[in-house]
Amino acid sequence: MTNGATLPAQPHDPAPPRQPEPSPALGALYRDFERENLNPLWTQIGDLMPMHPQSKASAHIWRWNKLLPLAREAGRLVPVGRGGERRAIALANPSLGGRPYATPTLWAAIQYLMPGENAPEHRHTQHAFRFVLEGEGVWTVVNGDAVRMSRGDFLPQGGWNWHSHHNAATEPMSWIDGLDIPFAYYSESAFFEFGRDALSKEECSTPALSRSERLWAHPGLRPVAQLQDLPTSPLLAYRWVDTDRALNEQLALEAEGYAATLSPGHAAVRYTNPTNSRDVLPSIRCEMHRLRPGTSSTPRREVGSSVYQVFNGSGSVIVGEQHWKVEHGDLFVVPSWQTFSATSGAGTTAMDLFRFSDTPIFEALHAWRGQDVSA
Amino acid sequence: MTNGATLPAQPHDPAPPRQPEPSPALGALYRDFERENLNPLWTQIGDLMPMHPQSKASAHIWRWNKLLPLAREAGRLVPVGRGGERRAIALANPSLGGRPYATPTLWAAIQYLMPGENAPEHRHTQHAFRFVLEGEGVWTVVNGDAVRMSRGDFLPQGGWNWHSHHNAATEPMSWIDGLDIPFAYYSESAFFEFGRDALSKEECSTPALSRSERLWAHPGLRPVAQLQDLPTSPLLAYRWVDTDRALNEQLALEAEGYAATLSPGHAAVRYTNPTNSRDVLPSIRCEMHRLRPGTSSTPRREVGSSVYQVFNGSGSVIVGEQHWKVEHGDLFVVPSWQTFSATSGAGTTAMDLFRFSDTPIFEALHAWRGQDVSA
Amino acid sequence: MTNGATLPAQPHDPAPPRQPEPSPALGALYRDFERENLNPLWTQIGDLMPMHPQSKASAHIWRWNKLLPLAREAGRLVPVGRGGERRAIALANPSLGGRPYATPTLWAAIQYLMPGENAPEHRHTQHAFRFVLEGEGVWTVVNGDAVRMSRGDFLPQGGWNWHSHHNAATEPMSWIDGLDIPFAYYSESAFFEFGRDALSKEECSTPALSRSERLWAHPGLRPVAQLQDLPTSPLLAYRWVDTDRALNEQLALEAEGYAATLSPGHAAVRYTNPTNSRDVLPSIRCEMHRLRPGTSSTPRREVGSSVYQVFNGSGSVIVGEQHWKVEHGDLFVVPSWQTFSATSGAGTTAMDLFRFSDTPIFEALHAWRGQDVSA
Amino acid sequence: MTNGATLPAQPHDPAPPRQPEPSPALGALYRDFERENLNPLWTQIGDLMPMHPQSKASAHIWRWNKLLPLAREAGRLVPVGRGGERRAIALANPSLGGRPYATPTLWAAIQYLMPGENAPEHRHTQHAFRFVLEGEGVWTVVNGDAVRMSRGDFLPQGGWNWHSHHNAATEPMSWIDGLDIPFAYYSESAFFEFGRDALSKEECSTPALSRSERLWAHPGLRPVAQLQDLPTSPLLAYRWVDTDRALNEQLALEAEGYAATLSPGHAAVRYTNPTNSRDVLPSIRCEMHRLRPGTSSTPRREVGSSVYQVFNGSGSVIVGEQHWKVEHGDLFVVPSWQTFSATSGAGTTAMDLFRFSDTPIFEALHAWRGQDVSA
Repeated sequence: MTNGATLPAQPHDPAPPRQPEPSPALGALYRDFERENLNPLWTQIGDLMPMHPQSKASAHIWRWNKLLPLAREAGRLVPVGRGGERRAIALANPSLGGRPYATPTLWAAIQYLMPGENAPEHRHTQHAFRFVLEGEGVWTVVNGDAVRMSRGDFLPQGGWNWHSHHNAATEPMSWIDGLDIPFAYYSESAFFEFGRDALSKEECSTPALSRSERLWAHPGLRPVAQLQDLPTSPLLAYRWVDTDRALNEQLALEAEGYAATLSPGHAAVRYTNPTNSRDVLPSIRCEMHRLRPGTSSTPRREVGSSVYQVFNGSGSVIVGEQHWKVEHGDLFVVPSWQTFSATSGAGTTAMDLFRFSDTPIFEALHAWRGQDVSA
Repeated sequence: MTNGATLPAQPHDPAPPRQPEPSPALGALYRDFERENLNPLWTQIGDLMPMHPQSKASAHIWRWNKLLPLAREAGRLVPVGRGGERRAIALANPSLGGRPYATPTLWAAIQYLMPGENAPEHRHTQHAFRFVLEGEGVWTVVNGDAVRMSRGDFLPQGGWNWHSHHNAATEPMSWIDGLDIPFAYYSESAFFEFGRDALSKEECSTPALSRSERLWAHPGLRPVAQLQDLPTSPLLAYRWVDTDRALNEQLALEAEGYAATLSPGHAAVRYTNPTNSRDVLPSIRCEMHRLRPGTSSTPRREVGSSVYQVFNGSGSVIVGEQHWKVEHGDLFVVPSWQTFSATSGAGTTAMDLFRFSDTPIFEALHAWRGQDVSA
Repeated sequence: MTNGATLPAQPHDPAPPRQPEPSPALGALYRDFERENLNPLWTQIGDLMPMHPQSKASAHIWRWNKLLPLAREAGRLVPVGRGGERRAIALANPSLGGRPYATPTLWAAIQYLMPGENAPEHRHTQHAFRFVLEGEGVWTVVNGDAVRMSRGDFLPQGGWNWHSHHNAATEPMSWIDGLDIPFAYYSESAFFEFGRDALSKEECSTPALSRSERLWAHPGLRPVAQLQDLPTSPLLAYRWVDTDRALNEQLALEAEGYAATLSPGHAAVRYTNPTNSRDVLPSIRCEMHRLRPGTSSTPRREVGSSVYQVFNGSGSVIVGEQHWKVEHGDLFVVPSWQTFSATSGAGTTAMDLFRFSDTPIFEALHAWRGQDVSA
Repeated sequence: MTNGATLPAQPHDPAPPRQPEPSPALGALYRDFERENLNPLWTQIGDLMPMHPQSKASAHIWRWNKLLPLAREAGRLVPVGRGGERRAIALANPSLGGRPYATPTLWAAIQYLMPGENAPEHRHTQHAFRFVLEGEGVWTVVNGDAVRMSRGDFLPQGGWNWHSHHNAATEPMSWIDGLDIPFAYYSESAFFEFGRDALSKEECSTPALSRSERLWAHPGLRPVAQLQDLPTSPLLAYRWVDTDRALNEQLALEAEGYAATLSPGHAAVRYTNPTNSRDVLPSIRCEMHRLRPGTSSTPRREVGSSVYQVFNGSGSVIVGEQHWKVEHGDLFVVPSWQTFSATSGAGTTAMDLFRFSDTPIFEALHAWRGQDVSA
C-alpha cells in the first residue's frame, strides 16, 4: 500500500451512484435522517470515497514580485507586537474557501521585519521553519539561543519552543515561514502560550553561529552529553554553504559516473534531525532540489501536498493541468496526487527549488503512495 | 510535549488581537491581499492558533432507540448494491456542517443488511472496523476469508483489503462501522477500487472461525511462516468471549489486590495488531472499557476525538458541559480536549463502553497530550 | 548481509596462509611480540577469520532415557538449597572443553525437584525459560506470582525477576531449563542476587492460572493499564493447549489449500512477547515445530546455534554429518552454519520439536544469515 | 535493568556453594555425568553466575614507544600479500590465553604499510575501523572508493564491504585497526571472501576526499537519492578537523555557561551513522573524549569492555586497581565492570582519548548497565 505498484487501473471515476426510487416514504426517511443528525453513505460515496485523491486545493502560483511589495507596504502600515504576534502574510489557496492555507495541511507565509523591530516571544505546538530567500540582519531567538538568518539558510523550529525575532540591521528583512497550522487546526491538537515581551540583552546578541550549531553541526558527530532522541531537530540552522556544496557534489559525482542524484541532472538533499536522521520536523518534510541547466525532473504524483519556492535560477513547471514559467522567489503549490515536474532554464544557472511537504504525516500512518508518471 | 505536565497555566484565552488603526491605505492593502490570494496572520491568530484545542465538533449523543428504527426503515426502502455499496447511515455531528462526520477525523455509521442480501466487494485505503452490538448471521468476507459477526465481536479491517458482507440468516442484522473517512478525505490520501459483484460459493460459507483466527488468535504465539510486520492487524475478529474474560480478570485481580485496572473499578483492554502489539489500525485506536457498578472513571481530557458506544449496562457520562444518561447502544462523541468521565449505574451490571479514537494519528506525530482533570 | 543471496561461491577454504621465511631476525621479532603481549594476524588469519562459520561445538545428542535416570539419582543424592541454588544438570557439548555449555551461547539443563522441595529465591540478569516434557505439580514463583508447570507448557522468565520453584505434589518432577548463561559469561554482563530463603504462604499457592496469564493471555488484547513496552515477556506461561491448537490449525489450513506452514507438512509457532510481538526473550528465540507423519523439513543452515528437544512422536534428524533416530525427550544441538533437517516417522503421530536458539543476538546486530541447502 | 539504580547491595561475593557430602554413590553419579557429557550447576554456580561481571581480561597497557618499533621491524621482515592479508599486530590481553584479543569481544591492532605496498582486497562480515594516530599517505579503498587516511581521522568500515589499502607515499605509515573479530569468532557468525589481487588504476587515485564524504559529510543533510537505512555508516571518513572543532565548541559552550559536556572539562563526541544517527557500527561504539588540562573524568563502571588510545596530550588513568601515566599513542584496556577514570596533565594541552567499546551489543540486547562510582 506504500507504493504505486498496485494502483487501480480504472481510467475514470464512476458515475454518481444510482439512487433508490424517490417516494414519499423515502423522502420521510431522509427528513428523519436530517432531524436525527444522520447522513446516508449511498448518496455521497462518490465524493467521500473517490477512486484516487482529488484535491480541494488548486495548483496555484504566487509571484514574488507581487508578494514582496505587499509585504513592504504591510511593514509601513502594520505594527508588530503582542496579540498579532507576527507580520506574516499567508498564501491562501484560492480553492480553500479564503482560509490562509497554502494546502489543506500547510501554512506558507512571507514574514517581514523592519529595522530594530522585535516580534515578541511565544511558543506553540505547531511545527515551524524559516527559509531565507534573500537578505540578512534578523536573528531568531529560540529558547534563548540567537540564530542568524541569511540567504539560503533553513531554520527549523520544532513545536513548543519559545521563540522571537529581532532585526538588528538597518534594512527590513523578509523570509518565508512554513508551519503545519492548517493540519493542527483541522486535527484540533494545538496549544499556544505567550512568552516574555522583551528579550534580555544577551539574547539580543548577534553571533555568527548559534549554540545549537556549535553543538550539532558536525557531520556524523553527536555530543555524548545529549544522546536522547528528539522528535524535532536540535540543530536550529542549516546553512546555505553546506546545502550548496552538498548539491554540487551530487552533480559532480554524477558527472564522474557515480549514483548520487535522483535522476540525471536532478540533485536533492533532505534536511534531517541529527538525533534520528529522519525528517527535521515530524509533520513537515523539507528539501532543496537542484536541476542542472536544461534538465527536467521525472514527472511524479504523490499522496500529500507540497509548497515550492524558486531559490535560484528560473525555468518552468507543470502541476497537473497548469504550466508556469517560474522565477526567483515564486511560490507554488502541488496538490495531492497531481503530477509535477520542473525544467530548469537552458542557460548557465541551475534552478534551485526549496520544497516543503506534509509527506511525514502519510508515512507515519502508512498512507503514502507515489508513482512516476509517463508522459 | 506528550503529556500534560507542561500545560499552560493561563486560565482564559486572550481577547482578540488588537488591530492596526483603520485607514484608507490599510483598506487598500487588505484588498490587495485578497486579490492576490493572501491572508494576514494578525487578523485571525486567535482562531487559528488557540491557547488549547477548541473543537469545532459538538459533544453529541445519538440514541440507539432512534437509530435502529431508521436503519430498519432504510432496510425496507433502500436497496444495497454496486454504486451505493453499503446501507450505512452515518452519524453527522451537528457542528460539522452537515457532513457525515462523527468527529473531524472519524466516521461512525450503523450498517443494516437484510436476510439474503450481499453488500458487493470493494476495497479502499480507508481503515475500517465493525463492532457488533447485537444479532448475528452476517459474515464479512475479507480477501476471501469469511468472518462471522456476532454480538460483542470486533472486526478490524485494514485499508486496501477486498471485502464484502453477506447475510446468511433469516433476520436482518445491524452493526457499527468505524472508519477514518473524514481524515482520509481531509488529507486527500484515499484510493478506492470496485471488486467482483458476487462472491464464489466457497466464500459464502459460514464457518464459525475465519482462517485469520485459526492462524493468529493464539495468545503470544506467532506463525513462523508469517513473520513480516504488518501495519494493520491480520487477525480479522476479536471475539467477545475473549474480551469479556480479559475485563473480568482485570477486575478480579484488582479485587485480589493487584495492579490491573486503569483506576479502581475501571478495567480496559486495547485491541492490538499481533504483528507489532500496537494499535489494530494505524489511524484508529479501539478499546473496550468496563466500569464496575457504581464506579466512575477519572475525568480526563486528551488531544483527539473519540466515539463511544454503550455495549452493556447503563449509567451516565459527562462530556465537557454535557451530562447524559446513557443506555444500551447509545453512541456519543467526545471532542478534542473536552473533559470526559463515565459512571456506571448502581445496580448489579457493569457498564461496558466500546471506544474508538484517532489517538494513533497524534502519537505517530508526537502531538498527543492528555491529562487528568480534577473536579 | 542478512540472507544467503550473496554468499561466497568458493567451495573450499584456502590453505593456511603462506608465512615469511624463517630467520633469526623473524624469530627475535616473534619473541618480542610475545613478550609485549602482541600477536600477529598473518600467522592465524585462517582460523580467526574463516570463510564461513566453523563451529567449535559438535553436533551432539543426549538421550532422554539416559538423562532422566541420572536426574533421579541426583534427586536422591543431592540436596537443593541456598548456594547450589538448583538441582540442574547441564548438557556439556563434548567439543566445548568440558564447560556446561550446550552451544557457545546456550545453556540447557534438566532440572529435578522432589516432592515438597523448594528451590530458593534468587534473580539474575541471564534470561531463562522452562519447558515441560512431562509431569506436573511444580509451580515457579516469579515476583510472587505462582505459575503452574504442566506438560507442554513453556515458561519464559526474563532477566532480573525474582524466582523460585516449589513442588506441591507427591511425585518428583523434571523439566528443561534454557538460559543464555554461556553468552552472559563470555560477554561478562551478568549480575546475580540472592532472595528470600522461604516464600510466603500465599506465594506457595497452587492456582491453575498465574496472574500474568489472567492479565496477558488474551489473543490480540492488551491491558490499557500496562502499555509500556518490555524487553521480556510479561506473560509467564504459554500453555500446551494453545500451542497444540495453533499447530493443528496451520496443518488444517494447509490441507484446505491456504498458506500457513513453513513448508508442506511443517507447521511452526514462535513464542512472542505480547508487548512488542518480538522474541519472548531478547537473546533466546523459542519455537515449537510440528512435522506431519512422514514429512521432512527443508534442509537449512543458519548463523547461530540451536538446541532441540523431541516433545511428541519420533523420527530422524540430520545435523551436518550426523544422522540420528530421535525419540521422546531426546535433546540435540545444531551448531552454527551446520545443515539441519528433520523427518517425522511414517506412523500416525506427528513429530513435535521444541527449539530454542540464539538467533535474536544475530538479528539485533545485523549479523544473521540463513539459507536453504539443496540436497 | 539498563541502569545502575537497582544494583545489588551485597558488598562481597558469597563463599563457594556448599556441596553434598562426598560418598561412593555421589562419586559414581559424577562419573556418570562426565561420561554422558553432563555437568551439574551446583558445583560451579559461583563462577558461572557471579554477583557482577568479573572480567577474565586484565586491565593492561601497551606503550606506543614499544609498539611502533616492533611494527617497523615487521615492516622490514614480513611481506604483505594474499593469504596473510595484512601486516597487523594485535594486542593480546595477557589474561586471555595468548589469543589476539584486546578484550573478550574486541580486536585492536597496529597495522603497518611500507611505501608503495598494497594490502590485497578482501571482505568479511566482521566490522572494522581505522584510526590514525600519526602520518599520512595511505588510502583505504572501499568498494572502489579511495579514502585518504590522515592524522586524527576515523574510518569506519561496515562488514562485507570490499577493501584494500595502498601506500602512495614515500614513507611507511601505521594506524590502529579495531574490529569485532573476537566476538564474531566466539559467536561463530563470520564470513570471509577474497577479492581482486590488484586494484584498477582509477581506484589507486589519491583524492583529498572520498566519494562517500562528498555524498554524506554535510551536517544534517541527507541525499534524497539514498534514503535507505543502513546498519553501518556509508560515511567512510570522519576528519580530525571536524572532530577537533566539535570538542572545542563543547568546552567553549561550557565556559559560557551552557550544558554541552559530560562533566566539567570533559567533552566527548560519538561517531554516528548518518542514516540512523546510531552507532557507526552495529557492534562497536567509537568516541573521542577531550579532558581540559588538569581535569578528571567521573569514575564509572559499565558492562562491556573498551580500548582507549591517547591521541593528544598526556595524563594518568585508573582502571580498576591499576594506575598508569599515559602518553601519546599508548593503548589500554578497560575490562567489563572495572572502574575507569582519566585525568589530564596540568599543562596547557588537553588530553584527547580515542575510545572504542562493545557497548552496542549490550544495548541491543537490553543487557547494558553503568554507574558512576564515588571515590
